[in-house]
Amino acid sequence: MTDPAAPLAPEQPNIPEGDAFAVTPDLVRRVADALDREQADEALALVSSLHAADVADLLEALRAGDREDLIQALGPGLDPEVLADLDEHVRDRVLEKIEPEEIAAAAAELDTDDAAHLIEDLDEVEQRKVLEAMPAADREMVEAALAYPDESAGRLMQRDYVAVPSFWNVGQVIDWLRETEALPDEFYEIFVVDPRHRPIGTVPLYRAMRNQRKTEISTIMNTDIHMVPVVMDQEDVAYQFDQYNLASAPVVGPDGRLLGQITVDDVVDVIQEEAEEDIHRLGGVSADGDLHLNPIQTVRRRSIWLVVNLLTAVIASLTIAIFAETIEQIVALAILMPIVASMGGNAGTQTLTVAVRALATKELTAANGARILWKECVVGGVNGIIFAIVTGAVAAVWFGAPIIGLVIGLAMIINMLVAGAAGMLIPLGLSRAGVDPAISAGIFLTTVTDVVGFFAFLGLAKLILL
Amino acid sequence: MTDPAAPLAPEQPNIPEGDAFAVTPDLVRRVADALDREQADEALALVSSLHAADVADLLEALRAGDREDLIQALGPGLDPEVLADLDEHVRDRVLEKIEPEEIAAAAAELDTDDAAHLIEDLDEVEQRKVLEAMPAADREMVEAALAYPDESAGRLMQRDYVAVPSFWNVGQVIDWLRETEALPDEFYEIFVVDPRHRPIGTVPLYRAMRNQRKTEISTIMNTDIHMVPVVMDQEDVAYQFDQYNLASAPVVGPDGRLLGQITVDDVVDVIQEEAEEDIHRLGGVSADGDLHLNPIQTVRRRSIWLVVNLLTAVIASLTIAIFAETIEQIVALAILMPIVASMGGNAGTQTLTVAVRALATKELTAANGARILWKECVVGGVNGIIFAIVTGAVAAVWFGAPIIGLVIGLAMIINMLVAGAAGMLIPLGLSRAGVDPAISAGIFLTTVTDVVGFFAFLGLAKLILL
Repeated sequence: MTDPAAPLAPEQPNIPEGDAFAVTPDLVRRVADALDREQADEALALVSSLHAADVADLLEALRAGDREDLIQALGPGLDPEVLADLDEHVRDRVLEKIEPEEIAAAAAELDTDDAAHLIEDLDEVEQRKVLEAMPAADREMVEAALAYPDESAGRLMQRDYVAVPSFWNVGQVIDWLRETEALPDEFYEIFVVDPRHRPIGTVPLYRAMRNQRKTEISTIMNTDIHMVPVVMDQEDVAYQFDQYNLASAPVVGPDGRLLGQITVDDVVDVIQEEAEEDIHRLGGVSADGDLHLNPIQTVRRRSIWLVVNLLTAVIASLTIAIFAETIEQIVALAILMPIVASMGGNAGTQTLTVAVRALATKELTAANGARILWKECVVGGVNGIIFAIVTGAVAAVWFGAPIIGLVIGLAMIINMLVAGAAGMLIPLGLSRAGVDPAISAGIFLTTVTDVVGFFAFLGLAKLILL
Repeated sequence: MTDPAAPLAPEQPNIPEGDAFAVTPDLVRRVADALDREQADEALALVSSLHAADVADLLEALRAGDREDLIQALGPGLDPEVLADLDEHVRDRVLEKIEPEEIAAAAAELDTDDAAHLIEDLDEVEQRKVLEAMPAADREMVEAALAYPDESAGRLMQRDYVAVPSFWNVGQVIDWLRETEALPDEFYEIFVVDPRHRPIGTVPLYRAMRNQRKTEISTIMNTDIHMVPVVMDQEDVAYQFDQYNLASAPVVGPDGRLLGQITVDDVVDVIQEEAEEDIHRLGGVSADGDLHLNPIQTVRRRSIWLVVNLLTAVIASLTIAIFAETIEQIVALAILMPIVASMGGNAGTQTLTVAVRALATKELTAANGARILWKECVVGGVNGIIFAIVTGAVAAVWFGAPIIGLVIGLAMIINMLVAGAAGMLIPLGLSRAGVDPAISAGIFLTTVTDVVGFFAFLGLAKLILL
């Protein structure tokens, strides 16, 4: 898979060095420096012993100009795996600089899933050119992969797998594995299929190896197989691997026939990607992030979210405007009102965060939704009372008016109770409506807590103080 | 590993059913209903064909009373894997109801890492009782695991592994695997060690199986091994597995000797856990979540964060208080001021989210920090100008005073510029100080954007309008 270069010094062959971070800031600086001085050989020497994934990280960390220089210096020595491992925004820019024929050559060397991943974001004309430059057999497999929906099992699977009939014995399997050339690069299980090529069992390699040659496959196979329909969403595939600790899984078509396999290393990437998407969406950033986009692309993406936020902020301001006269008479209200809104927003965000995450991991469902909603209302109420007392006391002392403390305390209880309920109901409702709650729940929530916070506080003030 | 019950109906042996969600809300309701009617047999029948991980999910979804009833009904039929798979808060409560001898029996059946995980949160007296009730060999392994720091490779590893000398050939390895009883339940690679038991290579099982019996192990082993020091943090272990697509890795002690192995299924759990921790922390919730805690425990944990937030909200209010007189004269300022603060908070949160995530994935380092900071300032400035124009126009029309539009526009530019810079500098600074930026960056950020937002808007208003 990788360069056979030993990462360990010969004198100390076995000192554990925890080589988790091969791409150190120092390495990036030295490579950039060499490229700036046009010493391509020096840069290549620094890069030569790196794993493809580390080269990809290095390219991502370099300035765009240095990145192009390094790609050019690497030339045909560029490992296709590097292209597959690149962040998609960086990859798009790198591929622009490479001829379709070279991309085709790289794609032909990769697993089907990685090859599809490599060219899926190219524009149609460019994609066609690359596909036409590929060997026919590879092209067909990649085209078949691209025909499945984005983020489906069909995109994720490799078309190479190992399948045997159930009447074979261990010896036959081993002999066949030794003789057959066209096998996947990596596999952890042997799939057992019936005459119509439908999986009926799996045999982990460690089990096949530990049994005598004459042992029949049907006697040692697992029959509780976790099959992946080819149209299954990758998030559900990842759930299944995580839930059942799978190393690989057979992918089957609508007729139940074996089409390919998904291995756990691909699933690790999916899990990282899905978690990243949730984190980004909760923070109001597009799912794939924008670290590697240029400022203008970044502004374009982020401003959409900020426009929505501006609208909600104006709604909150309209709420305040209702009570303009009240504020004119008691300016202390203007000073204190952000506290009520802010506390509601934060308490609601806590509930929302737990709810969004639990929905993603299937821990929050229709079965326990009502119970958890009730719990969040209790939590909101109790926290409301606690912070009503604290904030009320602070406000009363600050402005020398116990009645102001009473008003802010009551408003705090109302807003934190509402925050707890809204923090659950909004994501539950969005989820039921088929919308990803991570994307939009936060904006609805803070609109609610701002409006309720300002309205309760200023409204109560008008009622009680004037 | 699991019950051999076939999840597929006999008439349709191979229809892909995408069994990703075995624990449906309907199943939970039927089990709860059977338990409420004290029909334990009916409940057991519903549970009998489930995988251990699904039984754990079912227990988590049940009310506490029903959960205890089901545990009791399962009795010794409870698969130890179920206990290992439970959410830690639920597990703590379940273990309280089980005798130490039964916990010991369950722990003895599990892999070392799962057994250690099972009893690590018990109080010391209880943990001692369980350990003493375990068979001596198992106890020693679990005690050794518990001696390593929480969330370290030592906790994660299994002490069972397959290691052979490099002068063996494939046939010898296969024969030895067939003859030896004490092997790990699952393994994907054979580790090759030198005479001092230090790893010098690895052979994936698929490669061992595909080579002739007489092939020497030393000729087919990978020598670029990614060793895991036993004290390595689990987050770094996960990074290494993800980066290099590992199926397993040898764990070595400070002297370089092989101590155990970590397999990718454990790493999948770690990746889920670490992503979950980041999501929770960014939302102001404790890292392990609180879905399964009771309301009082939840209030206790969440209120800590809310106290910090109250302090920052008071700081923002103090900023407003400086300009009490100005607000008294122009009440429109009180109405508009939350818009500036809110837009700064949201723009800053976008930057912060990208920065926190990129720090976690090592995409943001000292090598590109300055460049990305500069980019975020540009993005903040450009967004500031865009929203200054929009908001300024809205405010000018709303209050019929172009000069108010000018004031809010200028304040917007200042606050969004500061938000972009602070959204990068705060997580970078926290990270450099060794603090997890996901925990505390948000609270610092909104303090900055609130204070700067209010100060810039009200200060400019005082300067320009009065």
